[in-house]
Amino acid sequence: MNITPGPLLGKIETPADLRNLSKEQLHEVSEELRQFIIDVVSVHGGHFAASLGVVELSVALHYVFNTPYDQLVWDVGHQAYGHKILTGRRDVFHTNRKYHGISGFPKRDESEYDTFGVGHSSTSISAALGMAMASKYKGETDRQHIAVIGDGAMTAGMAFEALNHAGVANANVLIILNDNCMSIDPNVGALKEYLTDITTSPTYNKLRDDVWNLLGKLPVGKRFTRDMASKLEAGLKGVVSSSSNLFESLKLRYFGPIDGHNIVKLVDTLQDLKDIPGPKLLHIVTTKGKGYALAEKDQTTWHAPGLFDKITGEIFKKPVDKPQPPKYQDVFGHTIIELAEQNKNIMGITPAMPSGSSLKFMMEKMPDRAFDVGICEQHAVTLSAGLATQGMRVFCNIYSSFMQRAYDQALHDVAIQKLPVTFCLDRAGLVGEDGPTHHGAYDIAFMRCVPNMIISSPMNEEELRNLMYTSQLPTQEYPFVIRYPRGQGVMPDWKQPFKEIKVGTGRKVRNGKDIAILSLGHPGNFVTEACKELLADGLQPAHYDMRFVKPLDEAMLHEIFSQFDKIITVEDAAVTGGFGSAVLEFMAANGYKADVRLLGIPDRIVEHGKPDELHRECGYDATGIAAAARAMLKEKITVTA
Amino acid sequence: MNITPGPLLGKIETPADLRNLSKEQLHEVSEELRQFIIDVVSVHGGHFAASLGVVELSVALHYVFNTPYDQLVWDVGHQAYGHKILTGRRDVFHTNRKYHGISGFPKRDESEYDTFGVGHSSTSISAALGMAMASKYKGETDRQHIAVIGDGAMTAGMAFEALNHAGVANANVLIILNDNCMSIDPNVGALKEYLTDITTSPTYNKLRDDVWNLLGKLPVGKRFTRDMASKLEAGLKGVVSSSSNLFESLKLRYFGPIDGHNIVKLVDTLQDLKDIPGPKLLHIVTTKGKGYALAEKDQTTWHAPGLFDKITGEIFKKPVDKPQPPKYQDVFGHTIIELAEQNKNIMGITPAMPSGSSLKFMMEKMPDRAFDVGICEQHAVTLSAGLATQGMRVFCNIYSSFMQRAYDQALHDVAIQKLPVTFCLDRAGLVGEDGPTHHGAYDIAFMRCVPNMIISSPMNEEELRNLMYTSQLPTQEYPFVIRYPRGQGVMPDWKQPFKEIKVGTGRKVRNGKDIAILSLGHPGNFVTEACKELLADGLQPAHYDMRFVKPLDEAMLHEIFSQFDKIITVEDAAVTGGFGSAVLEFMAANGYKADVRLLGIPDRIVEHGKPDELHRECGYDATGIAAAARAMLKEKITVTA
Repeated sequence: MNITPGPLLGKIETPADLRNLSKEQLHEVSEELRQFIIDVVSVHGGHFAASLGVVELSVALHYVFNTPYDQLVWDVGHQAYGHKILTGRRDVFHTNRKYHGISGFPKRDESEYDTFGVGHSSTSISAALGMAMASKYKGETDRQHIAVIGDGAMTAGMAFEALNHAGVANANVLIILNDNCMSIDPNVGALKEYLTDITTSPTYNKLRDDVWNLLGKLPVGKRFTRDMASKLEAGLKGVVSSSSNLFESLKLRYFGPIDGHNIVKLVDTLQDLKDIPGPKLLHIVTTKGKGYALAEKDQTTWHAPGLFDKITGEIFKKPVDKPQPPKYQDVFGHTIIELAEQNKNIMGITPAMPSGSSLKFMMEKMPDRAFDVGICEQHAVTLSAGLATQGMRVFCNIYSSFMQRAYDQALHDVAIQKLPVTFCLDRAGLVGEDGPTHHGAYDIAFMRCVPNMIISSPMNEEELRNLMYTSQLPTQEYPFVIRYPRGQGVMPDWKQPFKEIKVGTGRKVRNGKDIAILSLGHPGNFVTEACKELLADGLQPAHYDMRFVKPLDEAMLHEIFSQFDKIITVEDAAVTGGFGSAVLEFMAANGYKADVRLLGIPDRIVEHGKPDELHRECGYDATGIAAAARAMLKEKITVTA
Repeated sequence: MNITPGPLLGKIETPADLRNLSKEQLHEVSEELRQFIIDVVSVHGGHFAASLGVVELSVALHYVFNTPYDQLVWDVGHQAYGHKILTGRRDVFHTNRKYHGISGFPKRDESEYDTFGVGHSSTSISAALGMAMASKYKGETDRQHIAVIGDGAMTAGMAFEALNHAGVANANVLIILNDNCMSIDPNVGALKEYLTDITTSPTYNKLRDDVWNLLGKLPVGKRFTRDMASKLEAGLKGVVSSSSNLFESLKLRYFGPIDGHNIVKLVDTLQDLKDIPGPKLLHIVTTKGKGYALAEKDQTTWHAPGLFDKITGEIFKKPVDKPQPPKYQDVFGHTIIELAEQNKNIMGITPAMPSGSSLKFMMEKMPDRAFDVGICEQHAVTLSAGLATQGMRVFCNIYSSFMQRAYDQALHDVAIQKLPVTFCLDRAGLVGEDGPTHHGAYDIAFMRCVPNMIISSPMNEEELRNLMYTSQLPTQEYPFVIRYPRGQGVMPDWKQPFKEIKVGTGRKVRNGKDIAILSLGHPGNFVTEACKELLADGLQPAHYDMRFVKPLDEAMLHEIFSQFDKIITVEDAAVTGGFGSAVLEFMAANGYKADVRLLGIPDRIVEHGKPDELHRECGYDATGIAAAARAMLKEKITVTA
């Protein structure tokens, strides 16, 4: 679909074009940019509300700063659509998040304006500080380094680590705190409350006015000298002592809060701040979804709404003619409540993904037993460990790729102590449109080496329920990983009575004699399809749903290796060090000799696209599995014949 | 050696005995405890200065609180010796950190007083908060939960994440900030400066006095009611607004700073705080090494000095009669300077281990190019990534087990973006006396699955130098792991001219015909010894120093698998998913069939002990390797004969 930008936006190929406009035209540019985002996202999909919230900021930053020489790092990157459109990608923006299209996140390969690839939150201050320290070392004193970070991302520990360093590093870094009280869900925690306090406090509003009065006395556009900066600081110190603000406590000059939708004020402020050397923080207040009423009202739904009618606001759903399988997420969300009703020791923890994980159902129903701790994966895991020491059975639900943030905590605080925390690793495997930063590819490899850790993956909804049930039984004393993918399972009639799945046991799905296909988790369904193809070819594949990577079902593997000399393993995870590798270790340890082919995510960065496009690309969709089996059997058949 | 405790300490079997003493006797108990620590550590070794700094705190906590019902979490745990001695382990304290002796850290298996196993920093607040939330849920309103955390540990992000939650969780947790301005090296960063400011500020000292005056008005020993707590808070708020302190900003009640060596004041303060519900922080100021003059003066050296003469302060060194090989650490520390003198783009980063890693040499010589960022592994890695985007060649030196803290950053910020950061993973392999929390066992498994990552390990000092040299060549464009163990190498004459080691190439150490032994890193030296044993038995082992886990030397492996059907791999790392597993993946991918035995760290928690004791236990010391080879060859020889 051909979407026409507004007249001003249509002439902006790079930020240099933007800088040719007058300050008075920026409001119009902002409105055109906002409209363009609405037009494109409503018909092509993508993240929505975050970018609407920083339209004015995006325009102001590229107007004031000399990008790409001045370096701009967007934290997380959901909000960077305006930035992309202003920096040469307007005409390809409709390919956003599509297979072989542009990335939904800033990405260094894609543009020199994307100084740092993002996706996971809270990296921007560290990255910008690194750039600023490099500039300082090289003597590039005029170069600016800007990190734009939300109040949600600011809750993650690594943002604090970076602040702690920035305050004393004496490098030229500007942190823009984009305060909209939201992560994907509403932001939580003491910091959020503090920011609300200062945004609404008369003292701070007085301070703010005093600061602007001081700034206002300076000739417009004139560069700050160090002397003037000192005077400004002295003026500030007359108003408030240097330790009276959380950020000032950390030795950052704090400015704000200001309205992040007032483009002229933003531009004036950034102009002034540009000339103040050293580390500084500008606190702006914005509304996520700004300018699209429904999005302003329900920011979580409109974080990434899918396709919608931009006029009526109707979010399109695919028409369905029969009962659909549920999302694995909802199976988790409803099942934990059922279990918690039976077992009073169960608690649920999510780091900032109550909606995404569906823990929100339990948070609503059992608010004293289910908690969103904010974008704090490390804390989420060690908190779970602390709870587990008191006999609580905690389901700690973390997206697979975010579990990378809490790896040490899982290892050091949970596994070494053998505490029975259940890790529900959501979004395991190739996640699709979010791409490389979000693929849950590595969890099997990084968890498999950890002693005491049970690692499982369900092939369908019923197995997810039963693995959850098994993990919380009193007789089960180990940390327990259950990994499952984003999206729909395969069982419309999923709500079956709970049954224990003995830890370390697989399940034979079908007998066969030519080759054994061992699958882990949801890709077992691809194997089922592949087996149909192979049967049609007159081949007899056996299929085993192994369910556990650790401990492996050794009895079943002895049976398999005794009967088969051709084996394929299938997993929605990196093959390097993964489930297939575990099978090879078993084979070596037991002296078996078979041809084993490992299918899964290859050892390279897999880009974004729809999951089925990516499974095909990586060769473990049904067709890929069947092809691999035929290739292995061809030789065998030839020899036999 | 039989070390006699003082008369009061000699009667304390559990904290209940301590609580029978009068407050006036606590000073004497503290002095006896301090002396006992000095007596034992001087002849048996261990961490030293940290425990001396919290002698009074340890006594006060167990005196005031009803441990183990009240729950005490020591952050890191270097400082917990006094706690161990007071909680039933006085008479086994001389076995501290010895093979089969007690652990140098709190450990749940060891005592009910050790509520949470520690080792890595900054976990205590999350853990104590989890315990407190569990108590709240269970209705145990009288139960106390205390985290003791140093100002160094407070710089790590996860401590901040926990504070952000604690401030709003409304659970009964007391955080004691033990402010001594030290990690192992001096603490760094904005937070440290802030704490120094408030410790020395007249305003805060006034506040402190006002608080104590308020507290002083309460009848001694009487429990705070909620009403009294409100009055206290109101009083506090008259003195200072609730947002005027960093911790108050995060909704924690802040008390202090007070002198952490004044036992009576500590006891009185803790008594009062015990009765204030909700989250609160007590800031105490202590001196690391307190009471042992040399340790107070040089706190880094006396963090863990080894054996010493407690009277003269002489630290014993083993007598040597010939030039010794250097520590790998010092090879790193001197080599990075040599390289940086040749390559102006080189920088060095350490998260709080300048002495331990020997980056301190470069920090002294090139202060604009080498930085200690504090206990902030996550920030250290993403900062390195930011620097790398600007063409800097960063050597980011992190202990292997602490790299677990920055796994996502290595993956998401470095590897996905293919930035050429060099990760020097110090303390890789079994580290010895520090035990399970510090073993660098998992790095190969968790790094091997990461695309773009080069993973190497030197067998000796010269290879370490040459791998460092290779990693920073302009033609080398990938992230590059170099893992090496703690302690001495094998080459007294180590400082050889630099030579590039082509990435992904191994080295044949000796020809053979019966079996191929493939080693990675320093354990290659154990293989050299093992080969001598095997030769003496008339066997002909070949030995390959593979140097790279990723990429593997495929040409060499084809040669090996073509010539040998018996293969042993040896690594100082978890065998699950490790180097040997990579060799199995190669074998499967290329259709080879050989008997392969993987030697390395087994899939269980390996406890503490001397490295050679642990290598022997795990079966990959020289004797273990030779035994494994004989076992594999026995059959072969029988068949041949």
